[in-house]
Amino acid sequence: MKKSIKPSTYLAPVPAVMVSCGDMETSDIVTIAWTGTVNSEPPMLSISVRCSRYSYELIRKTGEFVVNLVDEAHLETLDGCGVVSGRDTDKFKKFGLTKQACEHVKAPAVAECPVSLECVVRQTVELNTHVMFVAEIVGATAKEEWTENGRLQIPEGELIAYIQNRYTQTGGTVGTYGYTAKK
Amino acid sequence: MKKSIKPSTYLAPVPAVMVSCGDMETSDIVTIAWTGTVNSEPPMLSISVRCSRYSYELIRKTGEFVVNLVDEAHLETLDGCGVVSGRDTDKFKKFGLTKQACEHVKAPAVAECPVSLECVVRQTVELNTHVMFVAEIVGATAKEEWTENGRLQIPEGELIAYIQNRYTQTGGTVGTYGYTAKK
Repeated sequence: MKKSIKPSTYLAPVPAVMVSCGDMETSDIVTIAWTGTVNSEPPMLSISVRCSRYSYELIRKTGEFVVNLVDEAHLETLDGCGVVSGRDTDKFKKFGLTKQACEHVKAPAVAECPVSLECVVRQTVELNTHVMFVAEIVGATAKEEWTENGRLQIPEGELIAYIQNRYTQTGGTVGTYGYTAKK
Repeated sequence: MKKSIKPSTYLAPVPAVMVSCGDMETSDIVTIAWTGTVNSEPPMLSISVRCSRYSYELIRKTGEFVVNLVDEAHLETLDGCGVVSGRDTDKFKKFGLTKQACEHVKAPAVAECPVSLECVVRQTVELNTHVMFVAEIVGATAKEEWTENGRLQIPEGELIAYIQNRYTQTGGTVGTYGYTAKK
């Protein structure tokens, strides 16, 4: 039998993404692990942000943000964007990142990230330490090498996962959805 | 520059977990990837479930469920619980799983899973294809080997991640939160 432990935010592995927000002039990037897919059609996800964050103000004002998936090559930037405040630092400048104009939202995407999901807030849920923005993915861009016939094809072993307070690698495929039914 | 692709549920990697619900007599297990941490204090997570699911009815009725983290040893069960309906199959029996009584909820945990998070629904958000249950983690259990001084210590490379329609391995640690600030 398992033993009892103190409840905590133990769901794992979770994504670790860079969320960009604001507009092409005034913008910010915040590292978020409290995110998840919440609906299939239309595609929707949620991000939870602390009210004290500069990004929170920008998202609250504009109702838009971009979720940028992060590969291992950008791990330092991912971590850096989580520990520096955008209130006194332009993170695009500090980390040498490029603002990519989006088609469907005013917020800039991070050009260097392999995949960017353009999101519009549909519902806001006030929790205790965090506010959850529930948003529809209205547009998406990916780097050419990660697409096949116009569809995203994420290569194995590139994305970063977050487990407890550790960034970890993702590895090889061990099965595909429904594989046991096909046996 | 990146190229435009059709928006979809591309957030990745996401967790792939087994959610158990009901009570010690009438229960079900459903595989869920549309889940995420949403609040730090108190610890909260969300799961999104299709209304057509048998588990949806049970969670709606009881307002409780258990999120069971899944390691690679239980991949077949994870996939199987996602493709079989609990309406006509007792998944605990079919997959040879053991109901573990919980301390804080009436729903059973899956004894074979390394970590179980006992959840009570605090808010229900109706979306389009899915309903999102926003829940507080009120209790937790873990297998002895995954704890250290009463706290969870998830070993490297054990948990399964979900990327597009693939179950993938998680690997070694490449950094810990805040490591760039300490440099």
